[in-house]
Amino acid sequence: MRALRLQRWKSEPELVEVPEPAPGPGQVVVRVGGAGACHSDLHLMDDFDEGSVPWNPPFTLGHENAGWVHALGDGVTGLTVGQPVAVFGAWGCGTCARCRVGVDPYCENPAGAPVPGGGGGLGLDGGMAEFELVPDARHVVPLPAGLDPVDAAPLTDAGLTPYHAIRRSWHRLAPGSTTVVIGIGGLGHVGVQILKATTATRVIAVDTRADALRLAEECGADLTVPSGTTAAEEIRQATGGLGADLVLDFVGADATLALGAAVARTVSDLAIVGIGGGTLPVGFFSVPYEMSVATTYWGSRPELIEVLDLGARGLVRPKTVRLPLDDALTAYRRMRDGTLDGRAVIVP
Amino acid sequence: MRALRLQRWKSEPELVEVPEPAPGPGQVVVRVGGAGACHSDLHLMDDFDEGSVPWNPPFTLGHENAGWVHALGDGVTGLTVGQPVAVFGAWGCGTCARCRVGVDPYCENPAGAPVPGGGGGLGLDGGMAEFELVPDARHVVPLPAGLDPVDAAPLTDAGLTPYHAIRRSWHRLAPGSTTVVIGIGGLGHVGVQILKATTATRVIAVDTRADALRLAEECGADLTVPSGTTAAEEIRQATGGLGADLVLDFVGADATLALGAAVARTVSDLAIVGIGGGTLPVGFFSVPYEMSVATTYWGSRPELIEVLDLGARGLVRPKTVRLPLDDALTAYRRMRDGTLDGRAVIVP
Amino acid sequence: MRALRLQRWKSEPELVEVPEPAPGPGQVVVRVGGAGACHSDLHLMDDFDEGSVPWNPPFTLGHENAGWVHALGDGVTGLTVGQPVAVFGAWGCGTCARCRVGVDPYCENPAGAPVPGGGGGLGLDGGMAEFELVPDARHVVPLPAGLDPVDAAPLTDAGLTPYHAIRRSWHRLAPGSTTVVIGIGGLGHVGVQILKATTATRVIAVDTRADALRLAEECGADLTVPSGTTAAEEIRQATGGLGADLVLDFVGADATLALGAAVARTVSDLAIVGIGGGTLPVGFFSVPYEMSVATTYWGSRPELIEVLDLGARGLVRPKTVRLPLDDALTAYRRMRDGTLDGRAVIVP
Amino acid sequence: MRALRLQRWKSEPELVEVPEPAPGPGQVVVRVGGAGACHSDLHLMDDFDEGSVPWNPPFTLGHENAGWVHALGDGVTGLTVGQPVAVFGAWGCGTCARCRVGVDPYCENPAGAPVPGGGGGLGLDGGMAEFELVPDARHVVPLPAGLDPVDAAPLTDAGLTPYHAIRRSWHRLAPGSTTVVIGIGGLGHVGVQILKATTATRVIAVDTRADALRLAEECGADLTVPSGTTAAEEIRQATGGLGADLVLDFVGADATLALGAAVARTVSDLAIVGIGGGTLPVGFFSVPYEMSVATTYWGSRPELIEVLDLGARGLVRPKTVRLPLDDALTAYRRMRDGTLDGRAVIVP
Repeated sequence: MRALRLQRWKSEPELVEVPEPAPGPGQVVVRVGGAGACHSDLHLMDDFDEGSVPWNPPFTLGHENAGWVHALGDGVTGLTVGQPVAVFGAWGCGTCARCRVGVDPYCENPAGAPVPGGGGGLGLDGGMAEFELVPDARHVVPLPAGLDPVDAAPLTDAGLTPYHAIRRSWHRLAPGSTTVVIGIGGLGHVGVQILKATTATRVIAVDTRADALRLAEECGADLTVPSGTTAAEEIRQATGGLGADLVLDFVGADATLALGAAVARTVSDLAIVGIGGGTLPVGFFSVPYEMSVATTYWGSRPELIEVLDLGARGLVRPKTVRLPLDDALTAYRRMRDGTLDGRAVIVP
Repeated sequence: MRALRLQRWKSEPELVEVPEPAPGPGQVVVRVGGAGACHSDLHLMDDFDEGSVPWNPPFTLGHENAGWVHALGDGVTGLTVGQPVAVFGAWGCGTCARCRVGVDPYCENPAGAPVPGGGGGLGLDGGMAEFELVPDARHVVPLPAGLDPVDAAPLTDAGLTPYHAIRRSWHRLAPGSTTVVIGIGGLGHVGVQILKATTATRVIAVDTRADALRLAEECGADLTVPSGTTAAEEIRQATGGLGADLVLDFVGADATLALGAAVARTVSDLAIVGIGGGTLPVGFFSVPYEMSVATTYWGSRPELIEVLDLGARGLVRPKTVRLPLDDALTAYRRMRDGTLDGRAVIVP
Repeated sequence: MRALRLQRWKSEPELVEVPEPAPGPGQVVVRVGGAGACHSDLHLMDDFDEGSVPWNPPFTLGHENAGWVHALGDGVTGLTVGQPVAVFGAWGCGTCARCRVGVDPYCENPAGAPVPGGGGGLGLDGGMAEFELVPDARHVVPLPAGLDPVDAAPLTDAGLTPYHAIRRSWHRLAPGSTTVVIGIGGLGHVGVQILKATTATRVIAVDTRADALRLAEECGADLTVPSGTTAAEEIRQATGGLGADLVLDFVGADATLALGAAVARTVSDLAIVGIGGGTLPVGFFSVPYEMSVATTYWGSRPELIEVLDLGARGLVRPKTVRLPLDDALTAYRRMRDGTLDGRAVIVP
Repeated sequence: MRALRLQRWKSEPELVEVPEPAPGPGQVVVRVGGAGACHSDLHLMDDFDEGSVPWNPPFTLGHENAGWVHALGDGVTGLTVGQPVAVFGAWGCGTCARCRVGVDPYCENPAGAPVPGGGGGLGLDGGMAEFELVPDARHVVPLPAGLDPVDAAPLTDAGLTPYHAIRRSWHRLAPGSTTVVIGIGGLGHVGVQILKATTATRVIAVDTRADALRLAEECGADLTVPSGTTAAEEIRQATGGLGADLVLDFVGADATLALGAAVARTVSDLAIVGIGGGTLPVGFFSVPYEMSVATTYWGSRPELIEVLDLGARGLVRPKTVRLPLDDALTAYRRMRDGTLDGRAVIVP
């Protein structure tokens, strides 16, 4: 079969022929229906090098995948060949306290995982191929009725990541609350949809680009604010001076983090989701009292099931562009150029 | 009556004669049984100046107070003269969403408060006098049976502040969890007691001083670790490599915050309680995933009631030194010298 | 002024002339914009008698009220004459732990309340008059911009009661969950709206009446099921056999409670909101494991503020019929006959 | 090897020779160090019959077990032969939403479990033998340092069951709260220990037997109250009239449930843990507002890990009597007679 593989660090991936995988005991091979192209893949190609992460090329790209069960290894129960499924992409050790409840992204025994801190498309072969080998059946999540694998694929990361960052702050998002979403890209616009579907918080979207703000409006944002020197003041005023109960920073640059801190309320959450490389200096006198700053990374398997439910019911619909495997490389190039309008889903 | 008053910024307080207060409608005069001398009072004397805070001297010091109801203003119900009471020290506007549920420290309408962001001993007359005027009866909290006002006084701040910082993280403190307490001073040693009384978390205490670590042991710490270059490694090992579920930093300096981040687990809390003036740079790649960093300031009125219950049952007992009003100035000087062994409670 | 007063138990109320109220210290007189006619008022007229509750007629009816501040008693701050406001209807002692955080319906010192376990329209004069005396300014809640007092009135009970019953179960209402609403009347249809506005739970509505089920659909119910012998089976099937995560019983009869228990999931909530007088026998072998059964009564003041936000933003709109005070008695008669199509709001 | 087997319903178990088990793929054989004799085993012998549960004899008794890993099936990782372990006793399907997070007792796909709604000693061979076959390695939980398998065994049920019932109510158990424990037997006395170790709630113990109340005192109960006509009044008075925030009924008879409802506070929990067969009629007018009544059954795997931590640190120590396998039958007889002083742990 053909696969889009990262052959070495600091290089573009290549479309090459590889053997079809076969499942060992407890494993599953999924026929890929859709594989999302994620912005973090560009980091893999451009920025990472020996030692950046505890794994290395070559491997097939694609860490947000869905498709159909193709072959079951010995001892796998509860799945049937042909069944539409999503692949939970973070593959931990399976036995630590985190993995036991489906929180593989925070696996505490990475040495026991297939690769430490990785998964399919992240050190191991991912979904930009006809088939993907999933090393443990627990990562294979049946799709709810009405959800197509191509639509499901981006939900496993572009859906799950903002969902997790939002869900952990639900207790702050009662009616009357405000959430500020900074960065309305592949994850941010889904974040707006999730906020609207699961809470009654008021959503204020911030971006530098007018078309991103239009997308935020289509997704249900109550107010859009262009980035800039007056953004903090506009947001403060829109909250009656109180500030936001939750800030989701999908950029994660110094400037966006500073904006987040400037518009947050006392007793609020500021989630750093974007890997823009910025930092926020947090101290007793520098941020609002009890504004909790934390990074979040991906989400849990139970949360993925919930995201898929939102997708199946049409409450969350990432904006996507479908492309064949032959065009995957083009998709990444356009993503780098900023000319890709929506999340690219590769359909092998 | 005599009162220990801060007459101007950048000065030591003076013991002077002032008129006895009389309660207006809705107000209460408390005969002071005990008034705790807090380390933050030294900041008032030494570091603050016009513009540091939205209020100025002169005022009577003492923001952690308890005593007996002395006189009730018109319309006050539910209290009787002679009744032992604690004074909740943060006095907000009383009508914003925070104040309505007793969270005056985070009052969102400071312009509507007696002084913005202050209270008795913080811009308004406090408890280092024979009597204290409390401007709203809601701040007067009856003492549970068996709790003496002198013992209750330090609970209103040295008890309430760590209690709040701990209570907000209770959900992380199941058996098997670890809490690291940095700085075993006036608040820290009470924090250790509160952790032991209200949870089954393992407590690791950190301080530079051997006698502080001994105090932590007396308060129930499971392990004590001297500050220093090996502290982080020792704590990591003591937690099986996982790190702490909660870090309470009662110092708040750059170094202690860095230590806190170095020993925290993923999905943990790091509370900055001490006003040491440090900052922690928080970013996607600099701290454990979902380590939530937040400052906390004082606590709420419902929480004070809970702390007083702990005090009445002997589960929390701040280490105190009782001194008459004549020696209050001496107490502050010894506090500055580091020769005061325990929290000074002034007994007028 | 004229007022609709219950003059004695077991009687219809009468429209009579009474003096205009004047506010004492700390009190507020509200000019009534709207006063909702509640089904529970029929119980007052028909079923109650000396000893049923700890208060007696005569008093003016109307416990869900909104209007404009008319006069302020001494010492009231934070309100201005003419300001549109809602009246929080449960009036507790004001000083117990419950009242201190706005949970007056569960006041633990009823002897200290204006009347024990009551409020305006419930033992004290309510809103079916030109003016209502509110005995403590804390019960007067400013309306958010865009919310008319006539629309706000029913939110204070028909909105607040289901809101509270739903909000306490939010943690169960993740995507993929199911909520069953039994009884789509004055409270139930608002409950459906609140569920849709604040969560992504699937809503299944149950009623005996076809028009009630149509109303549920208009309010956003995902599925409607007529009461009857097959209802439990239909609901079980619609949840894949698992059952509902939350059952809201707005009827509270033996049969509806039994239906609720029959369709509930393990680890779920069954809230008894309706005062239909039924009981459910709960034992180890009779109900699903960890199905928590509880009654709920009204809601808290902070929750009322949240409900008003939903109302102002158009996310919750009780179906109402506006009637002048002259027609209030007629409204109750039609309510008793079942010919009233929506919540009657009396506009004095 | 020898095993104590229930050969048929309505009979005493018999000590017979059976083949040693061998582990299949993914399975583990545990050499039994201790197997607790549980009161519910008497129900198996005395009360159950064809159709009572979805499984039938013959099987080896013993559902609370700990020991050492004896043999590992193919594909099992993370365990080593000889390692001391506890056996999580509820064996669900492993793939439903409940099982995926270790909540096997509430498995929602019982048809997919080894036996529906059972486990080792409950339809499948349990621990009253030299070896126990555990059908999935996930049920094998490593013991923390310092905890002996004989001490660990009763923690897996007599510890885990009250732990779960308490942990779900932790949010109600702040200082100032009260918990009433009804029935100070094998589970109840451990419940008192758990409450004292993990919270600062006040504990009131209720039992008919003076020696049970003495045991409660030894375990740390703050007050003991003999069952009887005045018990409710005594408890009400001891809580200042407010009632208990949590009632744990380890008996579950009509009378104890009625007592529980009589002493509960508004907004409280009443957990039915004991299988005494009673029921409580719950309705709007019959119980305190928002007293939540629910049964609880066993606990989850993550909770077991927490209980084992309490055991290893000496914070929870069930009172036990150690007996060899030859005396197991005697142990059950004495349990039936009420002459067994503590939990019998069979040491094969």
